Amino acid sequence: MKAMLRPLLNEDRSDLERMLSRIKEFDQDDQSLALELIDTYLQNPDQKDYVFILACDEQDRPMGFACYGPTPLTDRTFDLYWIAVAPEYAGQGLGSRILSEVEARIVETKGRMLVIETSSSPIYHLSRQFYIKYGYTLSETLKDFYMDGEDRVTYMKKFPSA
Amino acid sequence: MKAMLRPLLNEDRSDLERMLSRIKEFDQDDQSLALELIDTYLQNPDQKDYVFILACDEQDRPMGFACYGPTPLTDRTFDLYWIAVAPEYAGQGLGSRILSEVEARIVETKGRMLVIETSSSPIYHLSRQFYIKYGYTLSETLKDFYMDGEDRVTYMKKFPSA
Repeated sequence: MKAMLRPLLNEDRSDLERMLSRIKEFDQDDQSLALELIDTYLQNPDQKDYVFILACDEQDRPMGFACYGPTPLTDRTFDLYWIAVAPEYAGQGLGSRILSEVEARIVETKGRMLVIETSSSPIYHLSRQFYIKYGYTLSETLKDFYMDGEDRVTYMKKFPSA
Repeated sequence: MKAMLRPLLNEDRSDLERMLSRIKEFDQDDQSLALELIDTYLQNPDQKDYVFILACDEQDRPMGFACYGPTPLTDRTFDLYWIAVAPEYAGQGLGSRILSEVEARIVETKGRMLVIETSSSPIYHLSRQFYIKYGYTLSETLKDFYMDGEDRVTYMKKFPSA
């Protein structure tokens, strides 16, 4: 599977909106929040809080994306806010390609740590397995954070400091 | 000590900027981030993401404030983003009065949980003691989050569900 990585552009918005609506792990609220972040970025692509990496096919159509950024008030800690792959490309290494690029960029800027917060829900089982496979450690569990019975789980990975 | 609680107004901005600069726990980055949140609110006081509660003296001058809001993607979980008391009013029960008001408002809207993230640094020892005194439980520690040797510590309190 060929994928090109490039920044997010205005003309990608409707494609991404459609993609988000087809990802079964994302409910309506997830989709709205992801779109809000996309709009925040598109309104001001020069801000430094949110960085988008888009994976596109040979026709330059979005296949997946990630959004990450520096965590305020920290010394070179970064948050992975979203990582999403269109259902038809799931399980083919695209998530790994996107995550590797995020990590490479963070390491390039002397980043120290990447933090990923997600849910303990069975819906996110594959996501959690994915983070563990790529060397993330489950560092924290905040019981009942999302709702009674659904915890926030926090994964992290440290990078060799430069 | 008499204090009136009221919403944040445009004319408070410069008073709060000066107050923030006098609080020794807040470095330059903390102050900037707090002011950014104040500006976000003042630009659109009708949004629901950030709620400010201001404590004022008899001349209506700010003595302290809190900012909290509903945590995205959760079922009635709230975040306490900031709580600040001017140094001359520290240790006189004002923080407790403000926090009680935050909790009362959250309970009023059937809130389920309040989450407070802070630092393990000795600078915040009194803040952490304050949260524990008011029934918050240390639920998580994310090692080295702020910098090597400075962890993120997460406190939480659940409210009786309505």
